[in-house]
Amino acid sequence: MTANPNEKRQRADGLRTRHAILVEAVSLASVVGLDGISIGELAKALGISKSGLYAHFGTKENLQLAVIDQAGLMFATDVIEPAEKLDPGLARLVGICEAFFDYLERRVLPGGCFFAGAVLEMGSRPGPVKERVAAFQNMFVGIIRELADQAIASGQLPANEESELLAFELTGMILAADANFVMTDDVRSLDVARRALRRRLGIAH
Amino acid sequence: MTANPNEKRQRADGLRTRHAILVEAVSLASVVGLDGISIGELAKALGISKSGLYAHFGTKENLQLAVIDQAGLMFATDVIEPAEKLDPGLARLVGICEAFFDYLERRVLPGGCFFAGAVLEMGSRPGPVKERVAAFQNMFVGIIRELADQAIASGQLPANEESELLAFELTGMILAADANFVMTDDVRSLDVARRALRRRLGIAH
Repeated sequence: MTANPNEKRQRADGLRTRHAILVEAVSLASVVGLDGISIGELAKALGISKSGLYAHFGTKENLQLAVIDQAGLMFATDVIEPAEKLDPGLARLVGICEAFFDYLERRVLPGGCFFAGAVLEMGSRPGPVKERVAAFQNMFVGIIRELADQAIASGQLPANEESELLAFELTGMILAADANFVMTDDVRSLDVARRALRRRLGIAH
Repeated sequence: MTANPNEKRQRADGLRTRHAILVEAVSLASVVGLDGISIGELAKALGISKSGLYAHFGTKENLQLAVIDQAGLMFATDVIEPAEKLDPGLARLVGICEAFFDYLERRVLPGGCFFAGAVLEMGSRPGPVKERVAAFQNMFVGIIRELADQAIASGQLPANEESELLAFELTGMILAADANFVMTDDVRSLDVARRALRRRLGIAH
């Protein structure tokens, strides 16, 4: 049985509304935190009813989980995918970190990186929301570490580099860049991040 | 005019209560964030009345500012002062970072480092609370940078190191150590931090 055109249109409208809610919620959460987003405030910001919002997500936890997934999609589009055009190994490793700094500079979200905030906000609060944030964090650190391994294996980085330590340092640079940029709102803080990155990886400025 | 013994005792009791409130509030804020601490929840945790709590701080913003100052005192006692016994320059630079990792490992606060969370929570919310957090962050980064300058000037670190970049990297390691430790609750994540630090600064393991 195929849905009639009306049903199809309604379903498409529902998905568009859901997407608009999530984009707004990611933006709001980047400022007030995942726990700070209230269904009431979000409904107000979007000009829809609270009951309409409940119809889409049911509970605040479901909303939070959907927000994390949406933030993950946005991060993948803005930071991970652009670097995939570059060669695996060192070029892509540098590219992904620089794409992150560019992403901050474009001020895609008003509160900087959603995940940097979410990791520190949710780290000490066990539950499904923390697990979803942890899954993203592990995925991202895993990509960084794999690229570092490739760069070491191909001789683009010294053989005595350890990918686990390097991935730790690079994710530290990403967190520090986010913290400094949101605190100062000054793009010069991102130049420090870019120079530290290139210096650490032995790349000419 | 001198206060009579009763007045003195009352004032001392008041200061003790205020201190107990702030210690509890720093602990709570490390988990739920500076904005997450509610005067009601705090009063409940301490077994005192909300009006009693209001009498000490007046507004939530005043409470938040006092919590930041208390967290700063605790951080100075646990992280900065122990390293002051070490020689200025490289030894103290390593010491202060290691004191931070040890501080996390001792689980002094249930949510890891108060300031790592506060910087990312408050970064995009202008106002006196953000300014107070920024003042602490600038003070801490300033200490790290000064120690790096001393280590470079005395030849303990290579002359081509730049203290601004190194301070950025080391504060990144501190943020990443906090993020990884609160997420995993696994002390092995701190060993990664310790090894990355010593490797970066060219110190034997």
